[in-house]
Amino acid sequence: MTADEIAELKPEVPDWQLLERDGIARLERSSPSRASPTRWPSPNRVGALAEEEGHHPALLTEWGRVTVTWWTHKIRGLHRNDFIMAAKTDALAAESGHATRAEIPEGRAP
Amino acid sequence: MTADEIAELKPEVPDWQLLERDGIARLERSSPSRASPTRWPSPNRVGALAEEEGHHPALLTEWGRVTVTWWTHKIRGLHRNDFIMAAKTDALAAESGHATRAEIPEGRAP
Repeated sequence: MTADEIAELKPEVPDWQLLERDGIARLERSSPSRASPTRWPSPNRVGALAEEEGHHPALLTEWGRVTVTWWTHKIRGLHRNDFIMAAKTDALAAESGHATRAEIPEGRAP
Repeated sequence: MTADEIAELKPEVPDWQLLERDGIARLERSSPSRASPTRWPSPNRVGALAEEEGHHPALLTEWGRVTVTWWTHKIRGLHRNDFIMAAKTDALAAESGHATRAEIPEGRAP
Protein backbone atom coordinates (compact mmCIF):
# COMPACT_ATOMS: atom_id res chain seq x y z
CA MET A 1 0.00 0.00 0.00
CA THR A 2 1.13 3.53 -0.69
CA ALA A 3 1.19 6.14 2.07
CA ASP A 4 -1.88 7.70 0.38
CA GLU A 5 -3.79 4.45 0.49
CA ILE A 6 -2.91 4.00 4.15
CA ALA A 7 -3.98 7.57 4.95
CA GLU A 8 -7.27 6.88 3.19
CA LEU A 9 -8.07 3.70 5.13
CA LYS A 10 -6.74 4.69 8.57
CA PRO A 11 -9.88 6.71 9.53
CA GLU A 12 -11.90 3.48 9.16
CA VAL A 13 -10.11 2.06 12.21
CA PRO A 14 -9.67 5.09 14.48
CA ASP A 15 -8.85 3.08 17.60
CA TRP A 16 -5.82 1.41 16.01
CA GLN A 17 -2.33 2.78 16.19
CA LEU A 18 -0.25 2.86 13.03
CA LEU A 19 3.33 2.04 14.02
CA GLU A 20 6.58 0.74 12.62
CA ARG A 21 8.52 -2.00 14.38
CA ASP A 22 11.58 -3.77 12.92
CA GLY A 23 11.07 -1.65 9.80
CA ILE A 24 7.59 -3.11 9.23
CA ALA A 25 4.42 -0.99 9.32
CA ARG A 26 1.74 -2.47 11.58
CA LEU A 27 -1.70 -1.79 13.00
CA GLU A 28 -1.93 -2.29 16.76
CA ARG A 29 -4.60 -2.00 19.41
CA SER A 30 -4.53 -2.88 23.12
CA SER A 31 -7.42 -3.62 25.43
CA PRO A 32 -7.90 -1.39 28.44
CA SER A 33 -5.86 -2.47 31.45
CA ARG A 34 -7.06 -5.25 33.74
CA ALA A 35 -8.73 -2.76 36.06
CA SER A 36 -10.97 -1.33 33.32
CA PRO A 37 -14.09 -2.94 31.93
CA THR A 38 -13.33 -5.32 29.09
CA ARG A 39 -14.18 -3.88 25.70
CA TRP A 40 -11.99 -6.15 23.73
CA PRO A 41 -12.42 -9.69 22.44
CA SER A 42 -10.61 -12.54 24.19
CA PRO A 43 -7.44 -13.93 22.61
CA ASN A 44 -9.45 -17.06 21.77
CA ARG A 45 -12.03 -15.12 19.74
CA VAL A 46 -9.31 -13.28 17.84
CA GLY A 47 -7.57 -16.62 17.30
CA ALA A 48 -10.76 -18.14 15.88
CA LEU A 49 -11.20 -15.17 13.54
CA ALA A 50 -7.59 -15.57 12.40
CA GLU A 51 -8.14 -19.27 11.66
CA GLU A 52 -11.30 -18.51 9.68
CA GLU A 53 -9.58 -15.87 7.60
CA GLY A 54 -6.23 -17.62 7.30
CA HIS A 55 -4.47 -14.44 8.43
CA HIS A 56 -2.75 -14.34 11.81
CA PRO A 57 -1.96 -11.38 14.04
CA ALA A 58 0.55 -11.16 16.85
CA LEU A 59 -1.48 -11.61 20.01
CA LEU A 60 0.10 -10.56 23.31
CA THR A 61 -1.62 -11.36 26.61
CA GLU A 62 0.06 -9.73 29.54
CA TRP A 63 -1.47 -9.20 32.99
CA GLY A 64 -5.01 -9.02 31.64
CA ARG A 65 -4.18 -6.70 28.77
CA VAL A 66 -4.54 -8.07 25.25
CA THR A 67 -2.66 -6.45 22.36
CA VAL A 68 -3.47 -7.38 18.77
CA THR A 69 -1.08 -6.44 15.96
CA TRP A 70 -1.86 -6.92 12.26
CA TRP A 71 0.55 -6.82 9.35
CA THR A 72 1.34 -9.01 6.36
CA HIS A 73 4.44 -11.17 6.57
CA LYS A 74 4.78 -11.72 2.86
CA ILE A 75 5.01 -8.04 1.95
CA ARG A 76 6.69 -7.01 5.23
CA GLY A 77 4.11 -4.31 5.71
CA LEU A 78 0.45 -3.42 5.58
CA HIS A 79 -2.03 -4.78 3.07
CA ARG A 80 -5.66 -3.65 2.71
CA ASN A 81 -6.57 -6.95 4.31
CA ASP A 82 -4.90 -5.85 7.57
CA PHE A 83 -7.29 -2.91 7.79
CA ILE A 84 -10.19 -5.28 7.17
CA MET A 85 -8.92 -7.61 9.91
CA ALA A 86 -8.58 -4.66 12.31
CA ALA A 87 -12.19 -3.66 11.59
CA LYS A 88 -13.30 -7.29 12.11
CA THR A 89 -11.46 -7.36 15.44
CA ASP A 90 -13.38 -4.22 16.43
CA ALA A 91 -16.60 -5.93 15.38
CA LEU A 92 -15.79 -8.89 17.66
CA ALA A 93 -15.31 -6.43 20.52
CA ALA A 94 -18.72 -4.92 19.77
CA GLU A 95 -20.31 -8.41 19.69
CA SER A 96 -18.91 -9.06 23.17
CA GLY A 97 -21.86 -6.99 24.32
CA HIS A 98 -19.80 -4.08 25.55
CA ALA A 99 -20.41 -0.56 24.37
CA THR A 100 -17.91 0.67 21.82
CA ARG A 101 -17.41 4.20 20.66
CA ALA A 102 -19.40 3.51 17.48
CA GLU A 103 -22.40 2.30 19.44
CA ILE A 104 -22.77 5.36 21.60
CA PRO A 105 -24.85 7.89 19.68
CA GLU A 106 -23.16 11.24 19.87
CA GLY A 107 -25.15 14.13 21.23
CA ARG A 108 -27.38 11.79 23.22
CA ALA A 109 -25.08 11.33 26.17
CA PRO A 110 -26.72 12.18 29.49
CA MET B 1 16.92 -12.72 44.10
CA THR B 2 20.64 -12.12 44.13
CA ALA B 3 22.76 -12.89 41.06
CA ASP B 4 24.09 -15.92 42.97
CA GLU B 5 20.60 -17.25 43.59
CA ILE B 6 19.71 -16.78 39.94
CA ALA B 7 22.92 -18.54 38.83
CA GLU B 8 22.03 -21.42 41.17
CA LEU B 9 18.50 -21.90 39.81
CA LYS B 10 19.10 -21.23 36.12
CA PRO B 11 20.45 -24.76 35.39
CA GLU B 12 17.05 -26.13 36.51
CA VAL B 13 15.43 -24.53 33.44
CA PRO B 14 18.11 -24.93 30.75
CA ASP B 15 15.75 -24.20 27.84
CA TRP B 16 14.84 -20.75 29.16
CA GLN B 17 16.66 -17.60 28.25
CA LEU B 18 17.56 -15.16 30.99
CA LEU B 19 17.13 -11.66 29.58
CA GLU B 20 16.58 -8.07 30.61
CA ARG B 21 13.90 -5.93 28.96
CA ASP B 22 12.87 -2.45 30.15
CA GLY B 23 15.38 -2.90 32.98
CA ILE B 24 13.54 -5.98 34.28
CA ALA B 25 15.11 -9.46 34.42
CA ARG B 26 12.88 -12.11 32.82
CA LEU B 27 12.82 -15.78 31.88
CA GLU B 28 11.68 -16.41 28.31
CA ARG B 29 11.14 -19.42 26.10
CA SER B 30 9.69 -19.72 22.59
CA SER B 31 8.15 -22.71 20.90
CA PRO B 32 9.78 -23.97 17.73
CA SER B 33 8.53 -22.19 14.62
CA ARG B 34 5.29 -23.18 12.93
CA ALA B 35 7.14 -25.56 10.62
CA SER B 36 8.61 -27.62 13.47
CA PRO B 37 6.73 -30.20 15.50
CA THR B 38 5.00 -28.66 18.49
CA ARG B 39 6.86 -29.27 21.74
CA TRP B 40 5.29 -26.50 23.61
CA PRO B 41 1.96 -26.13 25.42
CA SER B 42 -0.83 -24.12 23.82
CA PRO B 43 -1.46 -20.58 25.07
CA ASN B 44 -4.67 -21.89 26.63
CA ARG B 45 -2.84 -24.46 28.76
CA VAL B 46 -0.33 -21.86 29.93
CA GLY B 47 -3.25 -19.51 30.65
CA ALA B 48 -4.96 -22.19 32.74
CA LEU B 49 -1.75 -22.81 34.70
CA ALA B 50 -1.42 -19.06 35.31
CA GLU B 51 -4.99 -18.86 36.63
CA GLU B 52 -4.40 -21.83 38.95
CA GLU B 53 -1.23 -20.33 40.36
CA GLY B 54 -2.38 -16.72 40.36
CA HIS B 55 0.80 -15.68 38.54
CA HIS B 56 0.61 -14.48 34.95
CA PRO B 57 3.25 -14.51 32.22
CA ALA B 58 3.40 -12.48 29.06
CA LEU B 59 2.12 -14.81 26.35
CA LEU B 60 2.85 -13.89 22.74
CA THR B 61 1.28 -15.88 19.90
CA GLU B 62 2.68 -14.92 16.53
CA TRP B 63 2.42 -16.99 13.35
CA GLY B 64 2.29 -20.28 15.17
CA ARG B 65 5.12 -19.47 17.53
CA VAL B 66 4.28 -19.10 21.22
CA THR B 67 6.61 -17.16 23.52
CA VAL B 68 6.17 -17.30 27.29
CA THR B 69 7.89 -14.75 29.54
CA TRP B 70 7.90 -14.94 33.33
CA TRP B 71 8.83 -12.23 35.81
CA THR B 72 7.30 -10.69 38.90
CA HIS B 73 5.62 -7.31 38.49
CA LYS B 74 5.72 -6.39 42.16
CA ILE B 75 9.49 -6.68 42.49
CA ARG B 76 10.22 -5.65 38.88
CA GLY B 77 12.39 -8.71 38.43
CA LEU B 78 12.74 -12.41 39.04
CA HIS B 79 11.45 -14.28 42.07
CA ARG B 80 12.08 -17.96 42.82
CA ASN B 81 8.45 -18.49 41.85
CA ASP B 82 9.25 -17.46 38.26
CA PHE B 83 11.72 -20.34 38.00
CA ILE B 84 9.08 -22.68 39.39
CA MET B 85 6.55 -21.40 36.83
CA ALA B 86 9.10 -21.90 34.04
CA ALA B 87 9.65 -25.50 35.17
CA LYS B 88 5.86 -26.03 35.33
CA THR B 89 5.53 -24.67 31.80
CA ASP B 90 8.15 -27.21 30.70
CA ALA B 91 6.15 -29.93 32.47
CA LEU B 92 3.02 -28.91 30.52
CA ALA B 93 5.01 -29.26 27.32
CA ALA B 94 6.10 -32.74 28.39
CA GLU B 95 2.47 -33.67 29.21
CA SER B 96 1.47 -32.64 25.69
CA GLY B 97 2.85 -36.03 24.73
CA HIS B 98 5.79 -34.66 22.83
CA ALA B 99 9.33 -35.69 23.60
CA THR B 100 11.30 -33.13 25.56
CA ARG B 101 15.02 -33.10 26.11
CA ALA B 102 14.58 -34.50 29.63
CA GLU B 103 12.61 -37.48 28.34
CA ILE B 104 15.17 -38.63 25.81
CA PRO B 105 17.67 -40.85 27.62
CA GLU B 106 21.13 -39.87 26.56
CA GLY B 107 23.30 -42.57 25.05
CA ARG B 108 20.26 -44.52 23.97
CA ALA B 109 19.55 -42.59 20.77
CA PRO B 110 19.58 -44.80 17.68
